[in-house]
Amino acid sequence: MTWLDLPSDTGFGLANLPYGIFTTAPAAPGSATSEAARTGVAIGDHVLDLAGLTGDPVHATGSLNAFMAQGPESWAATRAMITAWLTDPAHRERVTPHLIPRSSVTMRMPIEVADYVDFYSSRDHAENLGRMFRPGSPPLTPNWTHLPIGYHGRSGTVRLSGTPVVRPRGQSRRPDEPPVFGPSRRLDIEAEVGFVVGMPSALGTAVAARDFPSYVFGVCLVNDWSARDLQAWEYVPLGPFLGKSFLTSVSPWVVPLAALSAARVEPPARDEPLLPYLADGDQPWGLDLSLEVRLNGTVISRPPFAGMYWTAAQQLAHMTVNGAALRTGDLYASGTVSGSTPDSRGSLIELSWNGQEPLKLPDGSTRSFLEDGDEVTITATAPAPDGSRLSFGEVTGRVVPAG
Amino acid sequence: MTWLDLPSDTGFGLANLPYGIFTTAPAAPGSATSEAARTGVAIGDHVLDLAGLTGDPVHATGSLNAFMAQGPESWAATRAMITAWLTDPAHRERVTPHLIPRSSVTMRMPIEVADYVDFYSSRDHAENLGRMFRPGSPPLTPNWTHLPIGYHGRSGTVRLSGTPVVRPRGQSRRPDEPPVFGPSRRLDIEAEVGFVVGMPSALGTAVAARDFPSYVFGVCLVNDWSARDLQAWEYVPLGPFLGKSFLTSVSPWVVPLAALSAARVEPPARDEPLLPYLADGDQPWGLDLSLEVRLNGTVISRPPFAGMYWTAAQQLAHMTVNGAALRTGDLYASGTVSGSTPDSRGSLIELSWNGQEPLKLPDGSTRSFLEDGDEVTITATAPAPDGSRLSFGEVTGRVVPAG
Repeated sequence: MTWLDLPSDTGFGLANLPYGIFTTAPAAPGSATSEAARTGVAIGDHVLDLAGLTGDPVHATGSLNAFMAQGPESWAATRAMITAWLTDPAHRERVTPHLIPRSSVTMRMPIEVADYVDFYSSRDHAENLGRMFRPGSPPLTPNWTHLPIGYHGRSGTVRLSGTPVVRPRGQSRRPDEPPVFGPSRRLDIEAEVGFVVGMPSALGTAVAARDFPSYVFGVCLVNDWSARDLQAWEYVPLGPFLGKSFLTSVSPWVVPLAALSAARVEPPARDEPLLPYLADGDQPWGLDLSLEVRLNGTVISRPPFAGMYWTAAQQLAHMTVNGAALRTGDLYASGTVSGSTPDSRGSLIELSWNGQEPLKLPDGSTRSFLEDGDEVTITATAPAPDGSRLSFGEVTGRVVPAG
Repeated sequence: MTWLDLPSDTGFGLANLPYGIFTTAPAAPGSATSEAARTGVAIGDHVLDLAGLTGDPVHATGSLNAFMAQGPESWAATRAMITAWLTDPAHRERVTPHLIPRSSVTMRMPIEVADYVDFYSSRDHAENLGRMFRPGSPPLTPNWTHLPIGYHGRSGTVRLSGTPVVRPRGQSRRPDEPPVFGPSRRLDIEAEVGFVVGMPSALGTAVAARDFPSYVFGVCLVNDWSARDLQAWEYVPLGPFLGKSFLTSVSPWVVPLAALSAARVEPPARDEPLLPYLADGDQPWGLDLSLEVRLNGTVISRPPFAGMYWTAAQQLAHMTVNGAALRTGDLYASGTVSGSTPDSRGSLIELSWNGQEPLKLPDGSTRSFLEDGDEVTITATAPAPDGSRLSFGEVTGRVVPAG
């Protein structure tokens, strides 16, 4: 129990305590600049100002990286300390001045992104795309059930939720025509879950799946905006490039792995025996997150994360098994989260079945892909140990015309 | 003319003046630690200590990023100042104490790598790989002559020349067999040329090919180590991942673009009309660099860079045409440099034609791919305005067994 008066349905209760970076907004236009960006913890409708309360410079750097680099013992101790502050009324007087209404703060990018990797670990998503693009062939490539397919994305264009989505320009080609240049006509979303690496690893060494919680600090939401027409023309043989690199949006709050103990589930049964380095072990990391995708306010999909074929622990083991080093701030995303039903697909290309079945919106309009002015918001919740649901906040973005 | 007594055949004359980061080696084992890493310029057999000579903190940060971020006017002014110091005997007394024998310094990573992109812009290389892997199909994919194909690599494993090459482990598969896990049996090199971005660009804007010298600071050598067996199994449909991400090596000296005026050449004739954003304009950036690849001391290839189909200016324009932002420290590489003759191919898989024609080495041994203990060194030179040839130094690495 907390001495705080929390809203009854808050997703930001004591079981959550996600970390983010915030500034206090300037009091009025033209007034003094906002205060320095610092680390905060979401609790109810407030942010607990960790920098102000602790005076610890690690929380005043303007990103979570320095704190993440302190390692899992520090993560656990800090979480225990915050829990004590918010539960023992003896701390009330000291803590209260450092609780700031969330409505009055401006969130910043929570981490300095080192490398960004995007996986492809929803079987339904991979099969849907296979059926659309390789009709007549098996929907999955032969490697899909043996390893978590992934690729590196552009870390310099991973930006905070709310960043305008400038419609990208690029080359595309209709069959049997020469390529043309112009704004993408097939701008899409990918609803994903992101994992933030806190601890580095040495070059030439592998990180075992069982060590996942020693390296990964927390979880956020990701929208991997995609230009399907650019991607289709460019991606053979070296994979997606400009179709993805214009923007990837992340939510401002990073939910610590420690908050997700009640969300852990068994991953789906595997088709093939796994090579030992990918074995789930007795502590698998399936996660029962429930996503929701809104387009201009209308829920268009509810993707279930629990069904993902490859877990984040397996992805981490795979990503490092060749000796690739991890750095604090590495971000890796799950790949589009799609369920088995049509209303649980995590991208418009799946929801509209490549434009053949456009979505109908309440205003009478239809959508196969995004139009200028469209706003997409992804939210998620997960079960908490106390029976409530904890919130991941949201990642949102509005499309603006090509510049 | 310089007042310095330069070796007659130095590739590090006044026409070159590449930048790097160095420390002075400790005098003896167990003695004081080496001095802080700082910016130096190679001249003959010496390093000019820019931090010591100028007292400018921008040269004492331990990477070139802060200097690069000052922009092209600062790059030009600094180069003019260094030239004046080394030519006007009036500066001799002041400069001489800051000239340190290169043999006594330890080089460090020259830049903090932001994003790393690898292109695929040698037509001969792309055709060779197409012939080996897609026999019976056209050697080039349909997009190849329309756009410079590229993909993002892992920036966290771009390391300095000399870093040991730990043989990567991973999954591979022989036809009609289940995948197996183990050390790569097809470890390869890729001889490439790297371009270092100095100036950032804003998200949502494109950088024109003609603005290449306003954004790109300089040029280095790259060995994009590759595990062909891992790559072959993983790369469909999202491109190379673990087959590349274990290590990419770069040379310690970054040759300023300003040093390459005499190396500029017309790129090859184009098969297809180019879309306007890829037009060469009247100032094309073909570069007449001559590469040399040594395996255990024996020259095994002399790849010519002048024949690359896509120039670095076109690659830059393509990489940003979708609005992707640049950051100071972005590194992009040309792709494997292969010429049209068998002795000018830039990878072992081409030189040994996928293992069918192993290389014979002077010690009587043969190589299709790298063995433990093998050392590969890539060097390059380019014509200088004074008729001499300027050197890019070298990028080297020795293979060590899987850990």
